[in-house]
Amino acid sequence: MKRLAILGSTGSVGVQALDVVDRAPGRFEVVALAAGKNAEKLVEQARRFRPRVVALADPVAASRARELLGLEAGKDIGLANKESMVLAGELLMRRAAEKGVTILPVDSEHSAIFQALVGHDRAYVRRLLLTASGGPLRTVAAGELAAVTPARALKHPNWSMGAKITIDSATLMNKGLEVIEARWLFDIEPRRIDIVVHPESIVHSMVEYVDGSVVAQLGISDMRGPISYALAFPERLRLDLPPLDLSRLGRLTFEPPDPARFPAFTLAYRALEAGGTAPAALSGADEAAVEAFLAGRCAFTRIAEVCEEVLEAQVVEPLSSVEQALEASDWGRHQAARRLGG
Amino acid sequence: MKRLAILGSTGSVGVQALDVVDRAPGRFEVVALAAGKNAEKLVEQARRFRPRVVALADPVAASRARELLGLEAGKDIGLANKESMVLAGELLMRRAAEKGVTILPVDSEHSAIFQALVGHDRAYVRRLLLTASGGPLRTVAAGELAAVTPARALKHPNWSMGAKITIDSATLMNKGLEVIEARWLFDIEPRRIDIVVHPESIVHSMVEYVDGSVVAQLGISDMRGPISYALAFPERLRLDLPPLDLSRLGRLTFEPPDPARFPAFTLAYRALEAGGTAPAALSGADEAAVEAFLAGRCAFTRIAEVCEEVLEAQVVEPLSSVEQALEASDWGRHQAARRLGG
Repeated sequence: MKRLAILGSTGSVGVQALDVVDRAPGRFEVVALAAGKNAEKLVEQARRFRPRVVALADPVAASRARELLGLEAGKDIGLANKESMVLAGELLMRRAAEKGVTILPVDSEHSAIFQALVGHDRAYVRRLLLTASGGPLRTVAAGELAAVTPARALKHPNWSMGAKITIDSATLMNKGLEVIEARWLFDIEPRRIDIVVHPESIVHSMVEYVDGSVVAQLGISDMRGPISYALAFPERLRLDLPPLDLSRLGRLTFEPPDPARFPAFTLAYRALEAGGTAPAALSGADEAAVEAFLAGRCAFTRIAEVCEEVLEAQVVEPLSSVEQALEASDWGRHQAARRLGG
Repeated sequence: MKRLAILGSTGSVGVQALDVVDRAPGRFEVVALAAGKNAEKLVEQARRFRPRVVALADPVAASRARELLGLEAGKDIGLANKESMVLAGELLMRRAAEKGVTILPVDSEHSAIFQALVGHDRAYVRRLLLTASGGPLRTVAAGELAAVTPARALKHPNWSMGAKITIDSATLMNKGLEVIEARWLFDIEPRRIDIVVHPESIVHSMVEYVDGSVVAQLGISDMRGPISYALAFPERLRLDLPPLDLSRLGRLTFEPPDPARFPAFTLAYRALEAGGTAPAALSGADEAAVEAFLAGRCAFTRIAEVCEEVLEAQVVEPLSSVEQALEASDWGRHQAARRLGG
């Protein structure tokens, strides 16, 4: 039986991870549950799964600490939190390698890439192709984006997620942050990571090899797929989710991302090129900008603008510690908030 | 340097295999070339590639002997010839296992499945999803199929292939034969092999795992992709073929195969269920029926009808030798020819 510590058990991914545990009786023992603030839900989960350890913590601290804690304990990690890899991917991957820890991505895109790389020699990888749904505003004309309301931007067509990530999906910043994550998770140069907009979110991502062969991972839009893969790897669980029926779907569509309407993803490439503390500053700036947009304090189009301003104002330093990355993120957040009158 | 013996070097796959060799200088040594009847082309190839052995043989004998010869020599085989696996897949796979020979599929569908299985535990395979272009007559109404001319049925939308396989593609018998091939190549029950019609021929085939995850292999419609994979495996060659550009393609479509208009593929499942010599008889019957159709001696719709009649007339025997499979194929051919007045 595999022993699991679920950090962030009351969040979207945590809840679905426990659903996967429920569907695979006898396969997992939940030894620890930790959550940020939802005490009621945590108690309910603790009653059902009877872990030895239950912890309620400050959400920001918990979110930042979780992968580091796992890493130091030398356990394999299912990584659902984007922030840690965006802020300090270079350091975390180095530390994971030293500790012999496997980091198993939980989000659907990186899980797809992981599955499309397994068994193939990485020396022959030409490109990673991250698919993007295009988000709730994919078809909105350039001239109308400034007037988009938070309520409109929160209506994601395929995935039910938190507010921050849904707005990041609308700006395509989410895909930019995933480019940063992929860069470190799979140790690949940013110029060899491309984004393809795929509104149906069925092809979760792809790997192109040097001979032109593309290996893709597909599935229905249900996070329990990638969560169960990370939990059970190298095994797979019979989940009884509805199977993918391509004939019934009829078609899958693809288009290039539009940097004119959704420039945020291009900032992630710029941050990676700048290196060091730049991705952390971008991440912090985006957090503050999304907060301001959701509070009605700025226009949708200001999110990317402010992030760009913060990147331009930053004096980038080489990254030598996680603390430094957290500081750069805080700096980015404050810079953006100041610009937005927060 | 990998040493290659190319049996059938003047055929479509052979010519493209030599093109791949040309594009990967220093990687392969062509030690033998054998062809059926195109002496002129064989001489031209021999001048260019300077093999130690050149052989011109009776085409039918050569085609039948090639995989057996390879098998006995204990060499890895790139299998482009469907017939051997359809006729005697059970025996060939057993022999290959005894000899420690890896059979590397060369056709795009089985190469795709091979690539979607590599690195994943086969115990978790739920289904193989063979894609089919749907062939040149995919959109022709049921009532018009009987009047389809050979010229019309030979116009394949995606692949340039020989006449027999193009007609098999039009009837969907080709996909049925590929189901038989997959059944033996990947040791999987026929009920777990499904066909999905995908007119763009970009997704070359897929594997669905028990957790609902689907791994697919995609690429442009160019046989040099799967040929090079089989030649170089486990390495990959840089071929400088145009890359797959999904954004430019825009969309991929999928539909179920239509057994009412194209019943031939269902006969392959029936032959597998009957077992033993039934697939060989079906293969022989189809050869004769396609020949008759191409010669203007029968209607397009008669191909599947005659194949079904032959299957129904057959007294199936368990398969114990390749000779017996060849006899069953001959029997099927004669039975069909007799019914078609050939």
